[in-house]
Amino acid sequence: MRPHDAVSPSSSLASRYRDVRRTTSALAAPLGPEDCTVQSMPDVSPTKWHLAHTTWFFETFVLARALPNREPYDARYGLLFNSYYEALGERTPRAQRGFLSRPTLKEIVAYREAIDEEMHDVLTRGVDADVATVLELGLNHEQQHQELILTDIQHVLAQNPLRPRYTPAPRIVQPVQTKGECPPLAWHHEPEGLRSIGHHGHSFSFDNETPRHRLFVPAFSIASRLVTCGEYLDFIEDGGYTRPELWLSDGWATRHREGWEEPLYWEKQKEDGTYLTFSLHGMMPIDRHAPVAHVSLYEAYAYASWAGARLPTEAEWEITSERCSIGSGHFVGSGLLVPRPLDAGAQEKGPHQMFGDVWEWTGSAYAPYPGFRPLAGALGEYNGKFMCNQMVLRGGSCFSPADHLRRTYRNFFPPGARWQMTGIRLARDLT
Amino acid sequence: MRPHDAVSPSSSLASRYRDVRRTTSALAAPLGPEDCTVQSMPDVSPTKWHLAHTTWFFETFVLARALPNREPYDARYGLLFNSYYEALGERTPRAQRGFLSRPTLKEIVAYREAIDEEMHDVLTRGVDADVATVLELGLNHEQQHQELILTDIQHVLAQNPLRPRYTPAPRIVQPVQTKGECPPLAWHHEPEGLRSIGHHGHSFSFDNETPRHRLFVPAFSIASRLVTCGEYLDFIEDGGYTRPELWLSDGWATRHREGWEEPLYWEKQKEDGTYLTFSLHGMMPIDRHAPVAHVSLYEAYAYASWAGARLPTEAEWEITSERCSIGSGHFVGSGLLVPRPLDAGAQEKGPHQMFGDVWEWTGSAYAPYPGFRPLAGALGEYNGKFMCNQMVLRGGSCFSPADHLRRTYRNFFPPGARWQMTGIRLARDLT
Amino acid sequence: MRPHDAVSPSSSLASRYRDVRRTTSALAAPLGPEDCTVQSMPDVSPTKWHLAHTTWFFETFVLARALPNREPYDARYGLLFNSYYEALGERTPRAQRGFLSRPTLKEIVAYREAIDEEMHDVLTRGVDADVATVLELGLNHEQQHQELILTDIQHVLAQNPLRPRYTPAPRIVQPVQTKGECPPLAWHHEPEGLRSIGHHGHSFSFDNETPRHRLFVPAFSIASRLVTCGEYLDFIEDGGYTRPELWLSDGWATRHREGWEEPLYWEKQKEDGTYLTFSLHGMMPIDRHAPVAHVSLYEAYAYASWAGARLPTEAEWEITSERCSIGSGHFVGSGLLVPRPLDAGAQEKGPHQMFGDVWEWTGSAYAPYPGFRPLAGALGEYNGKFMCNQMVLRGGSCFSPADHLRRTYRNFFPPGARWQMTGIRLARDLT
Amino acid sequence: MRPHDAVSPSSSLASRYRDVRRTTSALAAPLGPEDCTVQSMPDVSPTKWHLAHTTWFFETFVLARALPNREPYDARYGLLFNSYYEALGERTPRAQRGFLSRPTLKEIVAYREAIDEEMHDVLTRGVDADVATVLELGLNHEQQHQELILTDIQHVLAQNPLRPRYTPAPRIVQPVQTKGECPPLAWHHEPEGLRSIGHHGHSFSFDNETPRHRLFVPAFSIASRLVTCGEYLDFIEDGGYTRPELWLSDGWATRHREGWEEPLYWEKQKEDGTYLTFSLHGMMPIDRHAPVAHVSLYEAYAYASWAGARLPTEAEWEITSERCSIGSGHFVGSGLLVPRPLDAGAQEKGPHQMFGDVWEWTGSAYAPYPGFRPLAGALGEYNGKFMCNQMVLRGGSCFSPADHLRRTYRNFFPPGARWQMTGIRLARDLT
Repeated sequence: MRPHDAVSPSSSLASRYRDVRRTTSALAAPLGPEDCTVQSMPDVSPTKWHLAHTTWFFETFVLARALPNREPYDARYGLLFNSYYEALGERTPRAQRGFLSRPTLKEIVAYREAIDEEMHDVLTRGVDADVATVLELGLNHEQQHQELILTDIQHVLAQNPLRPRYTPAPRIVQPVQTKGECPPLAWHHEPEGLRSIGHHGHSFSFDNETPRHRLFVPAFSIASRLVTCGEYLDFIEDGGYTRPELWLSDGWATRHREGWEEPLYWEKQKEDGTYLTFSLHGMMPIDRHAPVAHVSLYEAYAYASWAGARLPTEAEWEITSERCSIGSGHFVGSGLLVPRPLDAGAQEKGPHQMFGDVWEWTGSAYAPYPGFRPLAGALGEYNGKFMCNQMVLRGGSCFSPADHLRRTYRNFFPPGARWQMTGIRLARDLT
Repeated sequence: MRPHDAVSPSSSLASRYRDVRRTTSALAAPLGPEDCTVQSMPDVSPTKWHLAHTTWFFETFVLARALPNREPYDARYGLLFNSYYEALGERTPRAQRGFLSRPTLKEIVAYREAIDEEMHDVLTRGVDADVATVLELGLNHEQQHQELILTDIQHVLAQNPLRPRYTPAPRIVQPVQTKGECPPLAWHHEPEGLRSIGHHGHSFSFDNETPRHRLFVPAFSIASRLVTCGEYLDFIEDGGYTRPELWLSDGWATRHREGWEEPLYWEKQKEDGTYLTFSLHGMMPIDRHAPVAHVSLYEAYAYASWAGARLPTEAEWEITSERCSIGSGHFVGSGLLVPRPLDAGAQEKGPHQMFGDVWEWTGSAYAPYPGFRPLAGALGEYNGKFMCNQMVLRGGSCFSPADHLRRTYRNFFPPGARWQMTGIRLARDLT
Repeated sequence: MRPHDAVSPSSSLASRYRDVRRTTSALAAPLGPEDCTVQSMPDVSPTKWHLAHTTWFFETFVLARALPNREPYDARYGLLFNSYYEALGERTPRAQRGFLSRPTLKEIVAYREAIDEEMHDVLTRGVDADVATVLELGLNHEQQHQELILTDIQHVLAQNPLRPRYTPAPRIVQPVQTKGECPPLAWHHEPEGLRSIGHHGHSFSFDNETPRHRLFVPAFSIASRLVTCGEYLDFIEDGGYTRPELWLSDGWATRHREGWEEPLYWEKQKEDGTYLTFSLHGMMPIDRHAPVAHVSLYEAYAYASWAGARLPTEAEWEITSERCSIGSGHFVGSGLLVPRPLDAGAQEKGPHQMFGDVWEWTGSAYAPYPGFRPLAGALGEYNGKFMCNQMVLRGGSCFSPADHLRRTYRNFFPPGARWQMTGIRLARDLT
Repeated sequence: MRPHDAVSPSSSLASRYRDVRRTTSALAAPLGPEDCTVQSMPDVSPTKWHLAHTTWFFETFVLARALPNREPYDARYGLLFNSYYEALGERTPRAQRGFLSRPTLKEIVAYREAIDEEMHDVLTRGVDADVATVLELGLNHEQQHQELILTDIQHVLAQNPLRPRYTPAPRIVQPVQTKGECPPLAWHHEPEGLRSIGHHGHSFSFDNETPRHRLFVPAFSIASRLVTCGEYLDFIEDGGYTRPELWLSDGWATRHREGWEEPLYWEKQKEDGTYLTFSLHGMMPIDRHAPVAHVSLYEAYAYASWAGARLPTEAEWEITSERCSIGSGHFVGSGLLVPRPLDAGAQEKGPHQMFGDVWEWTGSAYAPYPGFRPLAGALGEYNGKFMCNQMVLRGGSCFSPADHLRRTYRNFFPPGARWQMTGIRLARDLT
């Protein structure tokens, strides 16, 4: 995250704050107290915890700075709602967040409202550059948790044999039969060259996107669109999950240990061998033309090997992304909450679907950029300490807020993670 | 469970049914939807699950028999609320009961009310002997779950760093300083002889209490009262948790693997080395004169070795219990919800505290009585299939309903279980 | 173990010592240094370790008593070769015995010889009653390890895809086709009565066999012979491993967790569906008339349920055993090293095969007899501390030395253990 | 691995083959059959297995190609001695290599001799380019296992409470007091630029070192020498293992789960707080001037953070290495078998110790080079499928054969691995 040079106009900050916070509340609105309490695996956090943690973040990093003598809302909340900041003391182990029936949802909503009121006062009075910087980080942090609220509740609801839905499907999703075939996969070419990637300038970014730096990128081809469920089904039917030569060694071991035979949430129907999948709208048939989602890096790698291709590096992805507008992407604002097939009439060459729909696994391990410096203090733990055993994903998903994404945005997850809205774009050497 | 010979008077059955069901609801009343959803370990079930499972039991074993063509309330509820009846099909794995945010608490309360209404109709119309028999079992089953609701929610709330309480302590508990010392431990003697234990006659019992049978019991002494917290503290301070010669081999391994250094829920205070303990009324100082609770069989065995004694067999316990009235016991009806010190003025010889306060570990492995026959059908899974790797406990606890206990009642848990309200009575050979 | 009243004639003690020790060496003779080093699971010990541990036992419990100022052979051997005596200090964790490449087999053989020489001197000089008592225990202890050497090496060799054999099969085993059918199963009846079991008198027994005590035994029937492989195959083919109603709850969970579908060492042949089994003579076809072996208590229980019977209690077994001579049993001395079919001409009523062939699972949990007192000092850990979570087995096996067994002998293993030479005898209530 | 253009002169090939094979045998010579059998953890293989696996490699990849109709030496050996080639069928799980007492060491030596004889015949008759290529790979493969034999036996012997040594220390190691201080750490600078790394040309390399490719490298500084034990001790004494801010998140979790408080093999002496370490010469005092070894990537990262530096990337390392001769390195040929302090008189600027002593952790995740193509067939599994969750190490160690290393050589291990001879070199941004 880069500092701002000047005090942000306070009215705009206050209204942005209000908007982001309201959006979060709206995402939790369809859920009852029971839904908001459950943690279905260690990686998942209860909705209640997301609502409280983001609030604790503003209280700890903004209010405590802006109002030095302020008493905490509840001195014990750090123990409950600190996520992973070692510098801020002891905290509830991640895997035990689902044991916290108290504070209740109602109490957490009251906590949110109390902090929002204090924040409103602080922001309308105006804040200095330091506080504004942290506020900006806090808003982006909350947007990350907006995506996690959706991602995690999908996993929670999927464990329930009743397969309850988060919301009814909007009309546009219900007729899952697409009007036409999505365009065939084509390849976009980029020549070799000394290029630059990473964030620069005064606008906000996370620290892990900086510094902007040069690197030499050999010529490459990148796919015009995402891999579809239909294509992935071909991979399955061609024995993709039974051919070790397609897989990374760790992937093959994981696939066996976990018993993977298809993407997460897919369920093969005994009667006819077709697949249903669980989404936030409940069980739905697979849409052959929609991008495949909920695959791990291991499955993405195996699919790419099978297809005679590979995954793009994050540099290749970022360079290519300059040919797309972020605004063209399909984000959470559509209300669809599932990836959308590429329009049958889309121009063949693309590249399309770079933003939104699904996070795209890259072949790049998550590592510091040359010259990377983490933020000072506890916020230095935001990104840097995770730079090992994780892979970079790019482009956002249909669960991401549109105004949260950047071309330089680096998401990261371990290669075996599948509960995120993750998919596949192919690339190739060009030689 | 033994069959009734005749149709029970229906009005009495209906009113007993109503009373038991209301008691269950009252126990859940202090808890919100979040509290009722959490499962803090595989052995613990969420309150919501207890409320629904007991209802499903009546629906499955009573209504389905009494009304053969009846449609189930919700055909999917068996999958959710069957506990362990293999004969009744697939079910949610035990460790995943805490993943079920739906049905909500409100929906489960509605389910209870709907089944209660149907049950009322059936019971007031009158039922045949078979149905009355199963109804009686269902009521006793529900009483077992009443105790589990309290036991389990204590564990759930204990995981929360806020240590929230289930209810405020009644005034009588708050001044934990007892008015006087509890009487010194004395020994009650029984001569050797051919004795009989087990249930007989027409009144209700579980199948595992039958048949009544003869067995030869050597002369023995049994302690006049339960082991107190103060006595257990002496054991701790004498190095009880660091002396392998006092422990069973499996107990010593468990104590190390789990890091036990005191009973469950005890917390040593860094400042002064005293102990607090977590109860349904929140954190409280240890009462030296109250019976020690939340110890495993392993700890009970080590304590007894240290004290130069042993645990009683279940036959010794049952024989001795004939000298006590069940009504003298301290059960859930008192509202104390913690074990109570023996009155300072109690007659020394006793035996006292045989019923209520804490379940008493015996040295007897849970096994079928000679001639034991499980019930027919799915209900045959109620008790018999657990007769391995468990130890018998006797006498009920301050969480048990008074009218649920019998002298012949056999409770059973694995030797490492500590979250139950379990304590220690000593015995000795008399030779 | 009960003390001797007087000094044993030293020449006889010395010669018994020599015989037992030589037998152990002979059992290890077919094995090379590599075979003697491997530990295939935590329950199994390497042959080298058995050879050294039994020697350490004599050094620690006999030589150190008989020769108070004696220096240990190697002061570090306690750390390596103490099994489970907490009173004797730290030791190598059980699961890491297979990490000890040193001392080498040759060095351990030298250790045995050195201690044997010292023992010879001590024994020929004569020992007092105390030492004689411990010597007797040491010899019986070594005989237990003789059986374990065979049991454990069978497991070690079975892990090797080459399935190497310990010794070639003696001619009598090779034609596995029995000459005739073994006699049909018949039932032997015993009336109810006040009986006595347990060891008394001056001859040797382990402490867990004492004291002899009275108990009331209801009338029962017990099977005339062991369950055969053919009968067990019928159980398998009738879906025995897929019917939860036949199994204990823990057994059903274990069967699934471990993937059991047949006894340990049985391998179903893909070609024709027949079974081979791994023995100390390598892979052999199943002999339908031989007693089934290498089943857990859980499988024994399920088989008995399927057969409309149950397992005998240890009292029932011991009472019945008075009708058999131990000498009629089939022990290690035959050299067969596999259980032997009952002779086709055997008298129908039996009981037969009570001693030798396979250890017989009883339905009795391993518990102290009334009035049980463990030995004083470290040897008190020999038996008593294991009296939890284990089941009693009776009668010895084709791996046991004939002169090691007694009617009162109590062997014990956890209910899931299968690598021991364990089998099934049925019993029934007689009412 | 790149193909040779022409048939290698057969006499030279035969003599290289003989030399490499003899070196392997010499490394196993101090070990007895028991030592050669033990597997102390899944990552470690028994010496016997290394001896057989390398032989199986020549039999499978060279003899089977050179002599198409040849019968295998033992058709079952693939099942035992295939390491991880999925394309070559089933194999013994890695964690069970220590269960293989047979074939014996003697039988495996005979297997080696038989294959060596066949290989000699084939090589002296001359081989075509394809076979020569695979032969070269096989020789390099065997050299990798030479290093593993030493690395693994150190771990095996370290588990033994007797801490036996592999060989006595050569005289030069015994006086561990270095003659003088090693030179202070200095920094070597490299300017930014478009550079090339990776292997090219006709000489042998592994496939993962190719293709040589351009990349842009920013200016950097790199340390003149390795981090010493003395410097690492300062880190420990400054609380390095208790300060989460220095560690990667996964590293901190691992350090706690595994209880790390110092490098592997270091043992703090209770008496005086000094450290001994276990080497192939047994327990030895720490040499403050020798390079620290047996640290994980996590510890290397934490040390670098503490020192205000970072680990070099593999490109930085390779570029710097051009300023060193490989021949200057300290490899297995010295017979020291422990890392050696830098000579007190060494020129300050360095860089020194780039080759040999310890493998140097880089900050680069192990990934394919741009344009990487694995070998065809089963040998394509040699490197490529491991390109996930591992970090690159460079430079070889005192266990590596000198003629095995290259500047472009990429070793790789998971970040938590410590049993390898791994150490630390620091780097810094230069801006």
